[in-house]
Amino acid sequence: MNFAGVFAPIPTPFDEQDRVDTVRLRAALLKWVATPLDGFVVLGSNGEAVLLDDFESDQAIVAARDAVPASRRFIVGTGRESTQAAIRASKRAAEHGADAVLVRTPGFFKTQMTNDAFVRHYTAVADASPVPVLLYNFTALTGVNLLPAAVARLATHPNIIGMKESGGDVGQIADLVSSTPSTFSVIAGTAGAFYPALCVGAVGGILALACVLPEACSKVFKLTKAGRHDEAMALQRRITPAAKLLGQQYGVPGLKAALNLVGYDVGVPRPPLAPAPDTAVTALRDAIALFEAIPA
Amino acid sequence: MNFAGVFAPIPTPFDEQDRVDTVRLRAALLKWVATPLDGFVVLGSNGEAVLLDDFESDQAIVAARDAVPASRRFIVGTGRESTQAAIRASKRAAEHGADAVLVRTPGFFKTQMTNDAFVRHYTAVADASPVPVLLYNFTALTGVNLLPAAVARLATHPNIIGMKESGGDVGQIADLVSSTPSTFSVIAGTAGAFYPALCVGAVGGILALACVLPEACSKVFKLTKAGRHDEAMALQRRITPAAKLLGQQYGVPGLKAALNLVGYDVGVPRPPLAPAPDTAVTALRDAIALFEAIPA
Amino acid sequence: MNFAGVFAPIPTPFDEQDRVDTVRLRAALLKWVATPLDGFVVLGSNGEAVLLDDFESDQAIVAARDAVPASRRFIVGTGRESTQAAIRASKRAAEHGADAVLVRTPGFFKTQMTNDAFVRHYTAVADASPVPVLLYNFTALTGVNLLPAAVARLATHPNIIGMKESGGDVGQIADLVSSTPSTFSVIAGTAGAFYPALCVGAVGGILALACVLPEACSKVFKLTKAGRHDEAMALQRRITPAAKLLGQQYGVPGLKAALNLVGYDVGVPRPPLAPAPDTAVTALRDAIALFEAIPA
Amino acid sequence: MNFAGVFAPIPTPFDEQDRVDTVRLRAALLKWVATPLDGFVVLGSNGEAVLLDDFESDQAIVAARDAVPASRRFIVGTGRESTQAAIRASKRAAEHGADAVLVRTPGFFKTQMTNDAFVRHYTAVADASPVPVLLYNFTALTGVNLLPAAVARLATHPNIIGMKESGGDVGQIADLVSSTPSTFSVIAGTAGAFYPALCVGAVGGILALACVLPEACSKVFKLTKAGRHDEAMALQRRITPAAKLLGQQYGVPGLKAALNLVGYDVGVPRPPLAPAPDTAVTALRDAIALFEAIPA
Repeated sequence: MNFAGVFAPIPTPFDEQDRVDTVRLRAALLKWVATPLDGFVVLGSNGEAVLLDDFESDQAIVAARDAVPASRRFIVGTGRESTQAAIRASKRAAEHGADAVLVRTPGFFKTQMTNDAFVRHYTAVADASPVPVLLYNFTALTGVNLLPAAVARLATHPNIIGMKESGGDVGQIADLVSSTPSTFSVIAGTAGAFYPALCVGAVGGILALACVLPEACSKVFKLTKAGRHDEAMALQRRITPAAKLLGQQYGVPGLKAALNLVGYDVGVPRPPLAPAPDTAVTALRDAIALFEAIPA
Repeated sequence: MNFAGVFAPIPTPFDEQDRVDTVRLRAALLKWVATPLDGFVVLGSNGEAVLLDDFESDQAIVAARDAVPASRRFIVGTGRESTQAAIRASKRAAEHGADAVLVRTPGFFKTQMTNDAFVRHYTAVADASPVPVLLYNFTALTGVNLLPAAVARLATHPNIIGMKESGGDVGQIADLVSSTPSTFSVIAGTAGAFYPALCVGAVGGILALACVLPEACSKVFKLTKAGRHDEAMALQRRITPAAKLLGQQYGVPGLKAALNLVGYDVGVPRPPLAPAPDTAVTALRDAIALFEAIPA
Repeated sequence: MNFAGVFAPIPTPFDEQDRVDTVRLRAALLKWVATPLDGFVVLGSNGEAVLLDDFESDQAIVAARDAVPASRRFIVGTGRESTQAAIRASKRAAEHGADAVLVRTPGFFKTQMTNDAFVRHYTAVADASPVPVLLYNFTALTGVNLLPAAVARLATHPNIIGMKESGGDVGQIADLVSSTPSTFSVIAGTAGAFYPALCVGAVGGILALACVLPEACSKVFKLTKAGRHDEAMALQRRITPAAKLLGQQYGVPGLKAALNLVGYDVGVPRPPLAPAPDTAVTALRDAIALFEAIPA
Repeated sequence: MNFAGVFAPIPTPFDEQDRVDTVRLRAALLKWVATPLDGFVVLGSNGEAVLLDDFESDQAIVAARDAVPASRRFIVGTGRESTQAAIRASKRAAEHGADAVLVRTPGFFKTQMTNDAFVRHYTAVADASPVPVLLYNFTALTGVNLLPAAVARLATHPNIIGMKESGGDVGQIADLVSSTPSTFSVIAGTAGAFYPALCVGAVGGILALACVLPEACSKVFKLTKAGRHDEAMALQRRITPAAKLLGQQYGVPGLKAALNLVGYDVGVPRPPLAPAPDTAVTALRDAIALFEAIPA
C-alpha cells in the first residue's frame, strides 16, 4: 500500500444540537469524491477528533466509509494518549473499513515521551492493528517531536508503512526520507511546503488545503512528478497564502469557513472552538477567489 | 467553600492487566486519610486522567469517594478538550460525590485558545456543573496559558471558586491573587515554590509531593500561616529537591515509584508511560530519606 | 561585601546627537542618591550597554562614579560575548572605581553555552578581575540559562560573590540559594516577584522599578526584613502592575518614559529602540500615580 | 548585483595568543579561491564576529579582501545591536573593499524588535551604507524573527538587494520569495535544506558546509539549476548528515574541526567557545569521508 498523491483530512460536521451530522458528512464526501483527490482522512486533527467521544467517532467512520469508493484510500485517525486506547480505536477503525490508521503521538506527559516511549507505543499499536499504521507527528499541537531516530526504528515494523509529518521543516522531512526504507511513505502535512517536501522525497500530502482546493493541490503533485518544477513552484506560490490561512492562523474554524464558501456545507466547529471571525472569512474568500478555474 | 491547606493529587493504581485497581486505590487513600492532608484530588494530571476512559474514571471516583471522609475535601479532575465533554464529566463527578471539580484548560487547538475561548468554555462548564468549579492551568503540559486577564473575568462567576496554577512562576500567582476577589482561592501546584506562593497570597497547594511527604508539606503551610517565616523557608528548602524530582523530571512514573518506596502500593503507570528507571528510584529514595521523622 | 538591599539599574541618557550625555547622567544620579537606594548599576541591560561602544562605556562609568558617594554600592555591567572582552571591560570598570562588576552570560552561540563553558568563562573573568564578580542570568534576553548546577561550582571561587537572577521563577531563585554558601549573594532582578524572592533567600534586588519608585521598593525590602510579611505582601501587590509595565512589556523605552514622568530627565533610547508609544506613557502614568506619597 | 550560487561564510583563525591570525586567514582563502565557490562572507556568525572588536574586524576584512579576487563576491558581516554601530561597521567594510554587507538583525531587546523597529534600523543602515545591504535573519541565535511582512517593506529600498535566511523553514523562504521583487535575492543559510530552498526560489546559499565541501555544495546548486532534480535531491541527501553536524549540534567549534580535517589550518575558536570534543571530530570525519572525490 502506498500513499503517493494528495489526501484531504476532512472536517466533521455538527448539527444545530452540536451532534455529529452524518448526513452532511456524506454529502460533503460525495462532492470530494468527484475531485482528483487520492484519498481521505477522517478523524484527523482537522476532524476535531479530540472533541469526539468513541461513539461519535464510530458514527463518523461508518458514514464516511460508506461514501468513499474502494478506489480511494480511506484513512482513520486513531491517536489516543494511552496505548490501549489507541489499540482499541485502531481495531474499531479497521472493523469499520479503514484502509489504514493514522496514529498521532501521545503528547500529554511531554518529558516522558522519549524515543523509547514512542517506539514502545507504536510497536504495541502496530502489533495489534488489523490494518497498516501511519505514524503522525504534529509538534505544533502536541508539543512533542517524533524524531527521525525513533522513526527509523519503527520503520522496520512490517505493519508501520509510513508517516505524516505536519511540520513545515522540510529538512526534517528530508531526514525522515533518508532514515527510512524506500517502501516507507513519508507524507507532508503542510500545504505551504508541499512542493519542496515532494522535492526532498515525500510521496504525497495530507493537506487541509486539499479539502478546499483539491485540484490545485493535486496539480502541484502531478507537475512535480512530471518534472515540471518551474510550473510546480509557481503553483505552490499561488496556493501558499491560502495554505497559511488554513494552518495555525485560523485552524479548524478557518477550514470550515473556507469550505462553506466553496459550497461544502460543513457548519461550524464544536466548542470551545468558535466560528471563524468575519476578518478570517474575508481573508479566506480573497485567497480562494484566485482558484476557481484551475484545470486538473 | 475554601481551599486553604494542602491537597494531594493522588495517582490511579492499575492491576496486572492494566485495569483500574480500585482495591489498591482505596487502601492507599485510607493511609492518606490518616495524615494531616486537607483533601484529595482524583483524576488530576498525576492521576493519569488522560489515559482513562469514562467508565474507568467513574470507577476511580466512586472508589475514592468511598474512602474519603466528609471532613476532607474531595475534588475530581474533569477537564476535557470539548466543552460538552467537560460538562458531562463534571456532572458525573458531582453525582458520584465530588465536592468540587478541577477543570484543566483544553489545549489541543493552541492558537484558538484565546482569553475569549477560555471564558466561553469555563462559563458553560460552571453554568452546568452541580458543584463548584476550580480552574486549572498547567502550561508545561498543555502548551496554553490561562492568563490573569481571563481569570479575572471568570472569577466573577458564582460557581467558579478558585484556580490551581501549576506553574512555578510566583509572579503569575501574585497576579492571579491581585486580579481576583479575596473569596477566590488561588491554589499553588508546584511544591518547589509552595512557600513563596503562600507568601504572595495562594491559599493552599495541590502538590504531588504531598502524596509522598504529607506531613512536611502541611507543616510548610502551617508555619507560614503562623508567621514563622524563617522556619517555613528552611523547611521549603529541605523539600525542594524531592519536589523537583517529582515534577517534570520524573513525572507520574517518579510519583508512583516514590509512593511505593514509602509504603503506598500504587504500582506502575499505564503505557505509554513506563516505570521510573533505577536511577530515578535511587534519587527519589535519597531525597525522601531525609524526612522520616518530621513532626506534624 | 554584601548586596543586601535595593539597587537601581540606571539608564544611560543620550543627547540630541545620540551621544552619551554625561551631564544628564550625573544630574539623575544626584537625585537618586537622595533616595534610600543602597546602590546603583550602570551599564546593565537597562543601561543599553549593548548599544554602547567601549569609549562610551568608559564615559558613562566615570561620570556615574563621580556622582555616587562611597557609602553606596557602585556596580558596573561588563558582560561581553568573548571572555577576553569581558576581562578587559571588568579591568576598565575597576580602574574607574567599580565596587563590583555584573557580568551577563554570553549567549550568542546558544548550543555551545554549556555548564562547562559558563564555568570556564566566569572563572577566567573572576581570576582576572581586580574587583569582585557578580554572575548575571537573564534568560529572557539571552536565550541561555545559567543553571544552579553551574552556579554552585562558580560560587566556590573567592572572587565570585553573588549573582543577579532576572527571571521571575522564584523556584529557581530558591534553588540558587540552596546551591550556594550563605556568603554568596543571590539578588533578584524582577520587581514583580521581589517579595517572594526575598522570602526564599534572595538578599536584595536590582530592579528597574527601583529607578522609578525607590522608596516603595526599599520599603518592600525593609518590611520583609522586619518580618512584617502582610504589609510587605500588600505593598508588593501595589507595585506589581508598574513592575510589569517596566519589564518585558515596555522595556527600556518604558523605563525612560516613566522616569521622565517622575522628574528624571533621561531622554529617549538609542535606535533601533524607539521612544515608548503614547499608550505606554499613559499606562505608566496611571501605574505610578498611586505612589507619590509612600513613606520610607 | 546578484547572489546566485554558493558562498562560504568563512571562520576567523586565531593564533596561540588568541589574536586574529591574518596569515592563516589568507592562506585558507587562497585554498578556497581554487574551488568553484562564488564568493565569501567574512565576519558572519561562523566568523565569530561577535567575539571580535572593531580593530580586529578591520584586520580580518583587510586580510581577506586581499586574498579574494574581484571575480568572486566579497561580503562582510556588519550586524550590530545599535543602528549607529551597524552604520559605522558598514562604512568601514565598504572602505576596505566589501562588495556588500550582511547585516544581522539586532536581537538583544527582543520584545522591542517589532517589524517597525527592523524597518527603521535597516532603512537607516541602507541609507548610509556605501555598498548594497543584505538583510540577515538567524532566529535560532538571535531569538527574533525578521518576518516576510517587514522584508517586503525593506525590499523596496534601492540599497537593500537581498537577504540571508538561516532558518530551515523552507515555507518561510518561499514566503520571502513571494513577498519580494524578483530582483531581490533570497539566500538560504541552511545546507540541510539547500536543495528545497532552491526549489522554492532561493537564488543561492551562504552555507557553513560550503567551507568544508565546496564542490558538493556547488554541485547541488548546478544540478538544480540544470533541472536535474533527481540528482540534486540525491546529492542533497548525501550532504545532509554533514550539514547537520556543522549546524546547531557542533557550531563554530565543529566547523573549525572539520576544516582542520580537510586541510584548512584554521585553529580553534575563541573562548568562551571551546574546541570541538573528540566525539564531534570523529562524527565529522565520518560524515566528510564520503566526499573526497566529488566531481565539480
